[in-house]
Amino acid sequence: MRPSGRNVDELRPISIETDVTKHAEGSCLIKVGDTHVLCTASLEERVPPFLRNSGMGWVTAEYGMLPRSTSSRMRREASAGKQGGRTVEIQRLIGRSLRAGVDRQAMGERQITVDCDVLQADGGTRCASITGGWVALRLAVNKLMKAGDITTDPLMDPVVAVSCGVYAGQPVLDLDYPEDSEAGVDGNFVMTGTGRLIEVQMSAEGATFSRGQMDELMGLAEKGCAELVAAQKAATA
Amino acid sequence: MRPSGRNVDELRPISIETDVTKHAEGSCLIKVGDTHVLCTASLEERVPPFLRNSGMGWVTAEYGMLPRSTSSRMRREASAGKQGGRTVEIQRLIGRSLRAGVDRQAMGERQITVDCDVLQADGGTRCASITGGWVALRLAVNKLMKAGDITTDPLMDPVVAVSCGVYAGQPVLDLDYPEDSEAGVDGNFVMTGTGRLIEVQMSAEGATFSRGQMDELMGLAEKGCAELVAAQKAATA
Amino acid sequence: MRPSGRNVDELRPISIETDVTKHAEGSCLIKVGDTHVLCTASLEERVPPFLRNSGMGWVTAEYGMLPRSTSSRMRREASAGKQGGRTVEIQRLIGRSLRAGVDRQAMGERQITVDCDVLQADGGTRCASITGGWVALRLAVNKLMKAGDITTDPLMDPVVAVSCGVYAGQPVLDLDYPEDSEAGVDGNFVMTGTGRLIEVQMSAEGATFSRGQMDELMGLAEKGCAELVAAQKAATA
Amino acid sequence: MRPSGRNVDELRPISIETDVTKHAEGSCLIKVGDTHVLCTASLEERVPPFLRNSGMGWVTAEYGMLPRSTSSRMRREASAGKQGGRTVEIQRLIGRSLRAGVDRQAMGERQITVDCDVLQADGGTRCASITGGWVALRLAVNKLMKAGDITTDPLMDPVVAVSCGVYAGQPVLDLDYPEDSEAGVDGNFVMTGTGRLIEVQMSAEGATFSRGQMDELMGLAEKGCAELVAAQKAATA
Amino acid sequence: MRPSGRNVDELRPISIETDVTKHAEGSCLIKVGDTHVLCTASLEERVPPFLRNSGMGWVTAEYGMLPRSTSSRMRREASAGKQGGRTVEIQRLIGRSLRAGVDRQAMGERQITVDCDVLQADGGTRCASITGGWVALRLAVNKLMKAGDITTDPLMDPVVAVSCGVYAGQPVLDLDYPEDSEAGVDGNFVMTGTGRLIEVQMSAEGATFSRGQMDELMGLAEKGCAELVAAQKAATA
Amino acid sequence: MRPSGRNVDELRPISIETDVTKHAEGSCLIKVGDTHVLCTASLEERVPPFLRNSGMGWVTAEYGMLPRSTSSRMRREASAGKQGGRTVEIQRLIGRSLRAGVDRQAMGERQITVDCDVLQADGGTRCASITGGWVALRLAVNKLMKAGDITTDPLMDPVVAVSCGVYAGQPVLDLDYPEDSEAGVDGNFVMTGTGRLIEVQMSAEGATFSRGQMDELMGLAEKGCAELVAAQKAATA
Repeated sequence: MRPSGRNVDELRPISIETDVTKHAEGSCLIKVGDTHVLCTASLEERVPPFLRNSGMGWVTAEYGMLPRSTSSRMRREASAGKQGGRTVEIQRLIGRSLRAGVDRQAMGERQITVDCDVLQADGGTRCASITGGWVALRLAVNKLMKAGDITTDPLMDPVVAVSCGVYAGQPVLDLDYPEDSEAGVDGNFVMTGTGRLIEVQMSAEGATFSRGQMDELMGLAEKGCAELVAAQKAATA
Repeated sequence: MRPSGRNVDELRPISIETDVTKHAEGSCLIKVGDTHVLCTASLEERVPPFLRNSGMGWVTAEYGMLPRSTSSRMRREASAGKQGGRTVEIQRLIGRSLRAGVDRQAMGERQITVDCDVLQADGGTRCASITGGWVALRLAVNKLMKAGDITTDPLMDPVVAVSCGVYAGQPVLDLDYPEDSEAGVDGNFVMTGTGRLIEVQMSAEGATFSRGQMDELMGLAEKGCAELVAAQKAATA
Repeated sequence: MRPSGRNVDELRPISIETDVTKHAEGSCLIKVGDTHVLCTASLEERVPPFLRNSGMGWVTAEYGMLPRSTSSRMRREASAGKQGGRTVEIQRLIGRSLRAGVDRQAMGERQITVDCDVLQADGGTRCASITGGWVALRLAVNKLMKAGDITTDPLMDPVVAVSCGVYAGQPVLDLDYPEDSEAGVDGNFVMTGTGRLIEVQMSAEGATFSRGQMDELMGLAEKGCAELVAAQKAATA
Repeated sequence: MRPSGRNVDELRPISIETDVTKHAEGSCLIKVGDTHVLCTASLEERVPPFLRNSGMGWVTAEYGMLPRSTSSRMRREASAGKQGGRTVEIQRLIGRSLRAGVDRQAMGERQITVDCDVLQADGGTRCASITGGWVALRLAVNKLMKAGDITTDPLMDPVVAVSCGVYAGQPVLDLDYPEDSEAGVDGNFVMTGTGRLIEVQMSAEGATFSRGQMDELMGLAEKGCAELVAAQKAATA
Repeated sequence: MRPSGRNVDELRPISIETDVTKHAEGSCLIKVGDTHVLCTASLEERVPPFLRNSGMGWVTAEYGMLPRSTSSRMRREASAGKQGGRTVEIQRLIGRSLRAGVDRQAMGERQITVDCDVLQADGGTRCASITGGWVALRLAVNKLMKAGDITTDPLMDPVVAVSCGVYAGQPVLDLDYPEDSEAGVDGNFVMTGTGRLIEVQMSAEGATFSRGQMDELMGLAEKGCAELVAAQKAATA
Repeated sequence: MRPSGRNVDELRPISIETDVTKHAEGSCLIKVGDTHVLCTASLEERVPPFLRNSGMGWVTAEYGMLPRSTSSRMRREASAGKQGGRTVEIQRLIGRSLRAGVDRQAMGERQITVDCDVLQADGGTRCASITGGWVALRLAVNKLMKAGDITTDPLMDPVVAVSCGVYAGQPVLDLDYPEDSEAGVDGNFVMTGTGRLIEVQMSAEGATFSRGQMDELMGLAEKGCAELVAAQKAATA
């Protein structure tokens, strides 16, 4: 029934290739089906002004799509002269999500910027960015710990994300683009490795949903997130 | 226990004054406690390019805060040269929320822009904007119907919004600014007059939450939204 | 003969409601007929770089119109990405006018920013902004004096403004929008409580005027300004 | 008593060299003492949208200063990414002033853009731009009339401008930079060849002025403008 | 003697992987040593305004670097609000170079945009972009020809580019980053498959060079370009 | 055969008038045929951040065209809100070229900004800017040396530039606009007074060229540059 032939509670194939660029402190190329995102974590030994002399660190994120990551070419945001509303929303979500899993005191007064650049898009780019972004962050922090710059691990719990939605009347896990463009209701769920919630965003465009549907989507998300945590663990072992 | 002395499931006092400006097709000044938002609905007999010749209408929203609506003066976005990420996020939410309650076919090929300008802020401005914005929209549509330009009412169901959060370990309804700035977990709930959900955004900053907490906040939101719908009804009767 | 039925030397009804927002150090809502402007004065304990260590203060102003303050909706300047030429001109005029009535030495090294936001426009918004802006400034300075932060009153003389123009061949006082859009010659007159001049801007669009007409408009302005000073006095008594 | 040794009612030496660039339909280099402005008039056979099919023409102006036209180098506005408030104010004034002398019906549906670029500044650049801009406009219109594209001369009356101010307590004509930077009160006067007024802008920065002073400055301006009209006549004979 | 141990006339290892994204009409990932550029060619059935109804096509290019493609993180141009001077220069060069090999009449009235996004940088990114960009263009044109939309091959001759420079007093081929950052003189050479020149840019920063050195670099470039043409041929066979 | 009747190896008439503005430390108006550029050198006793406390100076350049310097009026870049790609490319070239002739150690920790503003354009504006820009720089440095602020002359060798191209199949020196707009191949050559090369930029638009043609253009450039150096010497003697 799903265009891809997947079961309603089936994720797309996940692959996470680590250390894909030679410059970044941490990096991975995450593929969730045909959605491919290059995630890098960049360390800087300085923090934003509001944290100076606080002893606390900061994690932030930026997001971008290559112009032809999509079916028809999009205008390059650098040439348009600003980041669009969707981009701004997504990168704020990624940053907030990753920070929820970080002990910023243990991190010390330094900043890690996670860049998530979509090389190819097929739905769910923000969720793939969170899941892959955490892997890049994990690798950068590992490097800091190995070097002795940090002694207590500041990453308290892995962070993953998945989308769910109602497609053709049926709640399904991990929407791809053909599903996403049809779904009247969908949501993004950000969770930790221990099943705690970080962010729930459910939204209807030209439609509404019931609390029962919300619970169903929530259940699918919990299943998907557990699998994503396992994939992260395998990639960073 | 709440700074305002309210019960955990108690809204702030609501007042909705209608027809407050002489130019707009619909308008109201909504006060949710000390949060005051001026909402206007402006009609244009044209639609965005992607809807031309579709026979369908469009509802969109813009949001702004006066520089001294807040405790310390904020820089004017017009002078900064762009709308900040928070503004963009909020106005997209307002537009999406209002559209969920609109039959765009019945509306005909015209656009209504809802402007929500915060005159005074004390937490919950985006929720007040949605609740008040719907009233302005209702009044503008009433005018179109009275003039015979529209025959079927395109407003299928009222739209309201409220925030809830965990303050001092306790789920509470309708956060004011002192609560909002302390709450590690909070959410915005957009609902219809018949209790259907349009948007749920729950978010933790530097924290996580459980599914049980999510359900508790949801319950508070349902109670608050029902009261807001009653206030809208009284204002537009 | 005037669309409103007023005499040629008659102001529109003036109302000045003070302390209308809870955050600003001084504020008022000034109504000059159907022109409504919200004026706030915000105090900061710092001055622009060119005044540091000078012992002198600064007064500046910003001006904005809500998108639907006008007959047809205007584009929001924050979304257009910059303040238009008219906005810039007006806010420079307001700042210059208010400063002319201030002893900046007595003020001490602090800045007061007066924001004038037009909620509803019907001609003469810049003049209403100056008259109302001075009231907001007066209230903010009163607070500083009451607190003992300033000992000598830095407001030397009230500042008010009114427009005059030639409508249907007849010099008239205080143009409303229907008059303003027809007048080939009009002027803005900024004066003090003792009748001194601060700024005179007379301008013809597609027309010219004689020195005699200029004198007539000047006479009307003097009458109007005296009445505005009385209204300010009543509001701040 | 004046830094330049001039009498109180004495203009600086005026020179107007015409046809100084090979591309523009009309051009001149005007020198008012050490203030040098290159003025060009560019003809386009199209009008702004609001005039299409009206049969009427349009005259507009732009103003710029070369980065090192001033005593210390200013930032180039093209590199700053926007025209400053002062630039916008000035170019609006120039356009409005020139239009006041034009019969836009006789001009036909075409646009003339007058560019005023300050090569060297020593006070009074906006006034020199108006006086020189009118010469460039005159020459471009002459070309149109010689070619038979226009039959009735649309330039009804020459347009000139001069500044006056109170320097060291004394009203003086045509302020140069050392005087302008000291004058607490100054004004710009735009007049026609027959002594009609187009624009009067009198302004006090940190000071006020009386109606008597205003009349004195006005008298000086009338004298100066008559001389400027003679200089234009000589240059375009 | 070279940091990489290469001979003075030795290219870095070249790899060109084709069809790397599912959306673009043509694409490749070119690796020149540690410089990795993703090149996509996007077809649009429209041309820029200046070519409408000319029967001729257009090829243009855009260039970008991912923020962490470099040794230390660069600010994202979309967030900075504009493309820097270096980016603009490079993308103009790529577009001009590719067009030199195209018969725009044979192409018909359509546009192909070549996007070159640097995933990892180690010197020579503009040259790799040209060489890889041509491959993406070749593949997109092949698709058009296979579909019968074009009958005469518009790609007259392959286009490749290589840099050369004087490193430690010695002319060398294909500078990597450690060499490039030390070289006082370097050049970029764009050539065709038949050895014709398209663009030569030689430049000294804080140094000068002789005509003899120029000839030596030219000779190295000819050797390198021949090898790059062979690599293109192998990749697109 | 050339539209101007010049020989293939003949420069246009050169005139360099020095000290043309009263504010700049050095200035000239260079005329290369009908191409007229005003060049000013502005001294500042500070350097960009990356040079602070290095003991070294900096020379940079900016370039602009007046809106009606060209055959049809161009949009003013300040009003467009940014410098175009061509402007950015040119000013980077001017700055790089001038710096190649400067001993930045001898200059001391100060910056000289060379502004090149095109008053009238007829081809070759970037080359005229370099040749004239060096004259302005020379005059500013002379002033510093006369004042004793610099003891060793930091200008090691004059810097000049000329364009050459293939017009109607024939290599020619110093292209004017009618030639430039027809030439398929052209180049800009920046050289020193002793015949060393600083920058060579040869470029084909919709064409290619041979190494033999490149050598011919190079030969013409050498002849032209020698004559330009003589003109500089005469002007600054």
